Parts: sequence; structure tokens; C-alpha cells
Amino acid sequence: MGHKRMPREVRERHMLDAAVAAFARHGYQAASMDEIAEAAGVSKPLVYLYLKSKEELFMACVRREVGALVAAVRAGTRERGAPADQQLWNGLTAFFAHTAARPDGVTVLHRARTQGEPFAREVAAMRVEVATLVTSLLGQAARDAGCDSALAEREVSGLAHALVGAAESLAEWSNTQARTAPSSAPSARETAATLMNFCWSGLHNLLNGERWVPTSRVH
Amino acid sequence: MGHKRMPREVRERHMLDAAVAAFARHGYQAASMDEIAEAAGVSKPLVYLYLKSKEELFMACVRREVGALVAAVRAGTRERGAPADQQLWNGLTAFFAHTAARPDGVTVLHRARTQGEPFAREVAAMRVEVATLVTSLLGQAARDAGCDSALAEREVSGLAHALVGAAESLAEWSNTQARTAPSSAPSARETAATLMNFCWSGLHNLLNGERWVPTSRVH
Repeated sequence: MGHKRMPREVRERHMLDAAVAAFARHGYQAASMDEIAEAAGVSKPLVYLYLKSKEELFMACVRREVGALVAAVRAGTRERGAPADQQLWNGLTAFFAHTAARPDGVTVLHRARTQGEPFAREVAAMRVEVATLVTSLLGQAARDAGCDSALAEREVSGLAHALVGAAESLAEWSNTQARTAPSSAPSARETAATLMNFCWSGLHNLLNGERWVPTSRVH
Repeated sequence: MGHKRMPREVRERHMLDAAVAAFARHGYQAASMDEIAEAAGVSKPLVYLYLKSKEELFMACVRREVGALVAAVRAGTRERGAPADQQLWNGLTAFFAHTAARPDGVTVLHRARTQGEPFAREVAAMRVEVATLVTSLLGQAARDAGCDSALAEREVSGLAHALVGAAESLAEWSNTQARTAPSSAPSARETAATLMNFCWSGLHNLLNGERWVPTSRVH
């Protein structure tokens, strides 16, 4: 089989691939180390030698998927000189392309949130990192539009958290669609366009000092 | 003390109030049944008599907070004949007023998501219920605007999930602000206005068949 000649990092990657698939399919408790070893084409003792325990294996999966997701979003928003709407569009398409391509990874991160500490902490740290990235993007857009004072730093941070929550919720929703009704499921680009349409006009208005105002009928 | 003369439902409410506060402050594992009984002004055996176990007590807290949140949003969006932006504004102000008034309840629901099944399932069911309510509101708005075909049912559902995720994320964010920097924390109305500004212009454009379109520079 040639396993002996594979470098450790390649075998470890196979283990993590198999583990992400198993944790996504069965959940943390029900996923079996036997199944993971078999799918990775290695012995169970080797999995324990490399990853120590089921808990550490799950943590390694969570960290890998967090890293991959953050890297995808960072790569998407790299073009700093571009207009704000293009940067946001690039970030959203990168995010949804990533979550569509790695549905098991998204499910593992979702499960990690509901699996208790310290896994939930890793996902929370990831959200802070992405929200900080989006906050800086929106802050830059506000400065470009010359509206430092109109759009307070606090509101920019709020908007960034709204956007991150919306993106996260849409990614789960579109992956559920892809699983349950694949023929009518939206593409990553369509999902990105939905969110862009949902939020861009509002952001654009805010950046230009235009606000939605409740009418007198509205309480 | 007069406890003997209190009806069971009043004593049970005191227990749940104390339990929500304790679970929010310490988390599920660290919250102590002694502390909960003491704060509720009852004996620990009475807590066990009424609520059976710590697990069932936590579940009772989760169910109560889910019910209260859904009821608040339903009450806010009751005015069916009103224009779509007013209904959405009413729903958002009701939601953020509720989450600001009951920060411990929000924390308990957040903890429930990360506390494993079956608690996470209760919160997931609540999200589905609220998303369904928002989907029907947006669908009604789309029909009022005469754009059945332009805004496909699938996209309406996606938009609703984006809105729910954004609202949830903003509620957590603004409660964190209120806890860590109370003097500069946004009011419920300000948070609702932030989200309304964020999403309404976009929704309004979508309802009128206007879309954000990537320029040729955008990949």
C-alpha cells in the first residue's frame, strides 16, 4: 500500500479528512475512531499516536477548518485598494465558495459550537477575527466616503457583527438546501448575491449619510 | 415567610428566574442547585420536587426563554395590514427590546446552543419558527409589491435566514457592549435602527426588482 513511505503530514491530513467527514456525518459522540482509521487507510493505534485522543482529534479538525475558513475570507478581501462594494463582494463570494466546497467543515464548526467548551471557544475566536476583518473593511469604506463622524465606530462594529451573523446563517441554510433539495439549491455565487443585495444598498446609504427613518405611524 | 401560601406556579417562576440568572452567570456545569434554591427562597428538595433534575431545570429555562422570545417577536409583527417596513421595524424593535430586557435569557439560549443535544435542538426549532415568521412577512411584502416571480420563494427564505442570523449576532454583540461598556452601549432602538438601515434599503430594492450587480472589474 506504500503507507510507510508517506510523510507524516500527508497521513495526518488523510486522518483529518476522514475525521471531519465522520464528525460531520455522525456528530462528536457517535463518530467512531475505527471508522475514521479505516477511511484514512491507517491503523487505529496510528491515529492515537498522531492525534492522542478523540477530543484532540476533534480539536485538530476544528482548528484546521477555522484556519481554512479565515484564510479563504482573508484571500478574498486582499485587494485593499478596490472599492468597498467590490471588496465586500469578493469576501462574500470567497466565503460562500469555501462553505459550499467544504460542507463537512461547516458542519464540524457548527457542531463545535454546540459541543461545549473549549471547542465553542475556538469558533467564537474565529467569529471575532472575521468580524474584526469586516469592521476594518467597513471602517475603510466609511473613511473613503468621508463619513468618519456620521458612522460611529460603534455602529460599524455592530454592522460587521450583523453581516457575520447573516453570512453564517445563510451558509448553514444554503448547505441544508444543497443536502435536501440539490436540484434547486442556490450556487455559492447566488447566495453571495442574495446577501450582497440584502445589505449593500443599506450600507451604501449609511456610508452616504442616508438613513431609514421610522414614520410617525411606526412606534 | 409566607412561602407555604404561594401558589405552585409562582414558586416555580421564582425558581426559573433564579436558575436563568445562575445558568447565565456560571454556565450549565458550574451553576449550583444550592445557589438557585437560595436565590429562589425555597429549599433544594423543593426544586428537585418541582423540576426533577438539573438537566430538566435547564430545559425548563430554555423552553421558557424560547417561548418568551417568540411571543415578543409575534406580538411585534401582529399588525398584518401595516406596510412591510413598519412590520419589520416593529418586529426588530420588539426583538431587541426583549433581548435587552432579558440579557440572562439571551445568554441561556446562547449557552443552550453550545450545551449539546437536546438543548441545541430547542434553540434550532426556535430559529426555524422565527425564520418562518420572517419568511412569511417578506413573502407578503413581495406580493404587496407585485413581484412574486422576481423574488423567488427560495430567495425569500434565504433573506429571512440572513435577517435572523444578523439579528441574533447583533443581540449578542449589543448585550456584550452593555456588559463591558454600559455608558456607550447602544439602546434597543438604536440596535434595531442599525439593522433596519443595514437591510431595509436592500430589501426594498429587491422588492422593486432592483439588484446590485457586480461590475466587470469584480470577479
